[in-house]
This record gives sequence, C-alpha cells and structure tokens, in this order.
Amino acid sequence: MTLTKNGRHIFNEVPKGYPVPGRTTVYDGSQSIDLENVPLNGGFLIKTLDLAVDPYLRSMMDQVSNSHVTPFQLGEPLVNYGIGLVLRSEYSEAKPGDHVYGLIPFQEYSVLRNFENQIERMRVLKNDVGLPWSVYLGAAGMPGQTSYMAWKAYAKAKPGDVAFITSGAGTVGSLVIQLAKRDGLKVISCASSEEKLEYLSSLGADVTYNYRTTSAREVLEKEGPIDIYWDNVGGETLEAALDNASTGARFLESGMMSGYNEQHLPIRNLFKLIGMQVTMQGFLVWSLVDQYRDEFYREFVPLLANGDIKYREDITQGLETVGEVLLDVQRGKNFGKGIIHLADG
Amino acid sequence: MTLTKNGRHIFNEVPKGYPVPGRTTVYDGSQSIDLENVPLNGGFLIKTLDLAVDPYLRSMMDQVSNSHVTPFQLGEPLVNYGIGLVLRSEYSEAKPGDHVYGLIPFQEYSVLRNFENQIERMRVLKNDVGLPWSVYLGAAGMPGQTSYMAWKAYAKAKPGDVAFITSGAGTVGSLVIQLAKRDGLKVISCASSEEKLEYLSSLGADVTYNYRTTSAREVLEKEGPIDIYWDNVGGETLEAALDNASTGARFLESGMMSGYNEQHLPIRNLFKLIGMQVTMQGFLVWSLVDQYRDEFYREFVPLLANGDIKYREDITQGLETVGEVLLDVQRGKNFGKGIIHLADG
Repeated sequence: MTLTKNGRHIFNEVPKGYPVPGRTTVYDGSQSIDLENVPLNGGFLIKTLDLAVDPYLRSMMDQVSNSHVTPFQLGEPLVNYGIGLVLRSEYSEAKPGDHVYGLIPFQEYSVLRNFENQIERMRVLKNDVGLPWSVYLGAAGMPGQTSYMAWKAYAKAKPGDVAFITSGAGTVGSLVIQLAKRDGLKVISCASSEEKLEYLSSLGADVTYNYRTTSAREVLEKEGPIDIYWDNVGGETLEAALDNASTGARFLESGMMSGYNEQHLPIRNLFKLIGMQVTMQGFLVWSLVDQYRDEFYREFVPLLANGDIKYREDITQGLETVGEVLLDVQRGKNFGKGIIHLADG
Repeated sequence: MTLTKNGRHIFNEVPKGYPVPGRTTVYDGSQSIDLENVPLNGGFLIKTLDLAVDPYLRSMMDQVSNSHVTPFQLGEPLVNYGIGLVLRSEYSEAKPGDHVYGLIPFQEYSVLRNFENQIERMRVLKNDVGLPWSVYLGAAGMPGQTSYMAWKAYAKAKPGDVAFITSGAGTVGSLVIQLAKRDGLKVISCASSEEKLEYLSSLGADVTYNYRTTSAREVLEKEGPIDIYWDNVGGETLEAALDNASTGARFLESGMMSGYNEQHLPIRNLFKLIGMQVTMQGFLVWSLVDQYRDEFYREFVPLLANGDIKYREDITQGLETVGEVLLDVQRGKNFGKGIIHLADG
C-alpha cells in the first residue's frame, strides 16, 4: 500500500464580511490516499488539475440553502467547478485518461460519484477545439454559460439598444460585453482600474468608467437611458440603473456582489419598475443549462478557440493559495478568471 | 345664446401625503358653456355621465411624467377614464347619442378631440351585453383590462400554483382572484375589514387575512411558498413575498400603493430574486391594450354580464364629492370600484 499526500483546502469558519485567508478557509496537508486501492463503489478516482474561484462562492459560505446552492460544510473542503483527470473508474461513462468537468472538492485527489445525485452531472470533456483545459472553468465553463445562456434567454437585444454591464472585467461581464457588441448594441461598462478599463475598450465597450472614482448615476444620466442592465453588483448601482431605465427595459439579475460581504443595501426606488415597465429577471445558470447546453458548445465555445471572443485567466499555483484568491475575487483584485492550478495532465 | 353651468373638479395643490379634500382638489361651479354653439373644431361635445376614481390617480398628482402618465395640471380639472354621451359631433366616428369611453376631464361638459393624439383614443362603446355604463369604468374598463391582460401576459399560471393577491377587495385584485381560481390556483388574499374578507371568500379566495391586524409574512410562511404574486402595495408585503417565493415565481408589479402617500419603503431583500429565479414584471396596462383588447371584449366582458365573474361598484353622486372619494380610494375605505355619477343618459 502506497500512500500519497492528498492536500485539501477546508472551510473553517463562517465569515462576517470578507473572507479572511487562513481563517475563513485553511489549507490542510495532513491527509493521504492510497491511489491504487481506494474503493470506488461504482464511482471514479480523479486527480484534480484545475479549480475555479468564482464570486458566488461567497454566498455558499453563508449557511443558507436555496434551490441550487448548498452551503459549504464546516471542516470539509470547499467545492466548486473543476477539471479532473480520471485515474481509475468503475463508472461506465468515465475511462482512465478522460478529462471530466463538474463540481469537485478542493483537494488533490477525489473519489466521485456525483453522476448520481448532483444538480449537474459530471461531464467528460471532449475539447475538440483544443482549448486549454482551464478555460472550461471560465469562458467555456459555468461563467461562460451564465453569460451566453442568460443573454440568449432574457436580454431580448435589438440593434441600437443600450446595454449597461457591471463587473465588465470579470469573466461573465467581459463575455456579456462581447455578446452585446456582436448584437449591435451600445455598451456602457465599468471596472476598478485604468488597466481594466483599457481591456473593456479592447472588447468593444463604447463607454467605460472606474466605479471607484465615478458614480454610475452620473454616467447613465449622460449615456442612458438603458435598455438592458446586466447586474452583477446590486445596491446603489442598481438604483441608478432603475432611475435611468428606458420603457420596457430588461434587468438581468446575475449577482449582487455589493451585498455579499457587507449588508445588502436596500433598494429605495424599486417602484420605478412599474412606470418604466421593467422586467427584472433573477436567474441561476443551472436552470438554463439543459435548454442551452448543446447550442453553447456548438455556437459559443468555437468562438473562444478561434479568438473571435476574448477571455482572460488569472492562474495561481497550488491549493495553499485558495484563501488569497477567494478574497481577491471578492475585492475585484483579480484580472481574469480566477483559477487554481494543481497539476498538469 | 343659452349658457349652461359647467361644474368642474380642479387640481389645486400638490399633496405631501394623502390628498386633502377641498385643498388638494376643489370643486368649481363658476364656469358655464353654450351647448348649442360652442365650436367643436372637428371634435365632439359630450355630457359626462360617469367618472372613475382609481388608486393610480395619486401618482398623477406628483409632478413627475413617465412613459404613459401625464401629471395633473394645477388649476385644471382632473382627468381620468369616464363615460360620455355625445351631444354634438363634427367627428365621423362619434354620432350624437353615442356613448364614448376614454380619458375625460372632471367636468360636466367637454369638447374632446382626443381621438387625435391621446395614448388611447376615445372609443364608442357598443355594450352589446347590456352592462350598466359605469361598469365600463371598472370591471369592463381599465382596471378590468389591467387584471385580465396582465394575468394573461405575465402570470404563467399552472393548476395547483399558489397565488398571493394584495388589495383583494379592489377592482383589480377582486378580478385577479377570480381569474386565478378559474385557472385552478390556490389563492391567498387580503383586505382591510371583515366584510371585505367575506367578499374575498365569496369570490373563491382560499386564504384571507386582514392586513391591518395580521402580517403578510406570518400568513405566507404558513400558506406559501407562492408561485405568483400580484403586487398592489409594495413595501414590507413585497419583502414578505420575496422571502416566500417559490423557485421561478412570477411577481406582477401592478402598483405600490404603500408608497403613494408616504415615502416608498426601501426593499431590503431584493437579492432573493436571484436565488429563487424570480421574474419581477413592472407593467402598465396601456402597453397591453393593443394586443389584448379584442380578446378582452370577446372573452372577459360577457363573463361580467352573465354573472360568472363578479364585481362591485361604490357610486357617489356629483362632482362635489370627488375629493372625499379620492381620499377613500387611497385609504382603502371604498368597497367596490369608485365611480362619480354625474348624469343618466
């Protein structure tokens, strides 16, 4: 019996505000695994190659369930979308050597059976287009699906419409900017640094501003009214969007980042949605995946591979770094999709 | 030249909270009109028979325009939906003796030309089904259209769904209750007195409560979660509905009465709509009328005439009473559609 170290990154304490590296979550190198003999019980053993760090992970630290999100368990590894290389398998659909995509614990090796009862089954990735595997965690993964599927389902974009897209330098926002431009829209977007604003412009955004120094209200009063609002932040920015909505505007409520680490700001002017006949659509990508998955892989992923749609990754090495990356993603310090790289394969 | 007195009810002062009879609006009996000789200029002269008093009139007292509502002008008569009898006409589509329906100034006689540039043209009422004319201001008029058209367009009702309908004893709410029951839903509704609650039950509501003594939150926690929320009130009731929404719930934002006369309460839990994937639809009936008008007169109005769908009217005599009725409607003191009756015809 040969034991191999199986490092993990564990959820240690419910945070009050922003997650604190080394306290909210901690690295644990005490575990090991017998890769040759660990029982699979109809499942399969994977070596974790890459793990995604997404903004929504903060909401899984609050111990509140909803229809699709299960809170992290204290003392257990974090869980999120990852890429695994199958080492051994008793499951007919996953062979050794396959690359699989799905929800994976934050540890180096895992025996998975989540083809049975997960909201989204583990999938074997074909990757015909030859993208780096990690891209299947970002632009070709859940964030990319969020952008593509919700835009298709809810934006009702017409050429000449004005779209306001927050968190434009994030994976979701940066892809939505490009989808909006491909549909012939005027795009207003924002980010937190000059470097990121230049990136937004390079993606085609027509109007950009630094949200740390400029108010959304000021920009929208000049450049609006807006027909589409892709909301990643909530709070005062959402109020400014309501006050500058055109008749029949569509608000795609993708996230309310401003309230994840602090109290959600109450929305004082929600009644505006009646007079302006706004449709405010809350959504989770998981409800759209069944309908749009095939179209996503057929229509969208090739555009990433051939460079027609751009993406960025912000890759960090090793499970020890997870705490810092979690915090960076909440503070908007990362620039590109937050990826923890564990191993090549 | 014979002059006839032409009494009016005038918008006199922008109210701070609830409208004050005799101050916010005043009766004015100083005007007269020469019915035989007043120039029509291509329009038509009407004698006003009935005028509607709706909750939304409060929002027209605030001097804020939106896409479909023009604020009342100080010193000018209020304007709302009314029934007129055509006395003289230079307009081809309205003959003397016709009954017309549309936006009419709060005065006894008016020369109208609003077939030209109004958001909704004056219509000649056929009334094949023989309803009292005043019903075309309530259940067969704009409030009825609001209920029928928005329910058709946005409720996505499925048998077994749970619908929560506020202001259930109002014209809109009482009709929505009956539409929901006809679609096979469980209905939760509320009103402000025992007498009104009995009325809600007689319309088929399964669960009723007095909103002056019982909190929506308490009722919804027991009887929810809710699939459809017909919102007439906003505020804390909307917060309770968000906290008790089922996945994919539809919120039909028809009004936010709680904020018309006092400050709108900020909504503290709007982020709930993301996790529960709620669609929040702000709407104004005017945008639905073109699509659903024919269906409304064909499918819905006959149900009012044959008694399959019930309605109530709260009729007051004479333009002098407008101020009191305006206030009653804001306070929920009326029981049935608020109608000012001026003349038979």
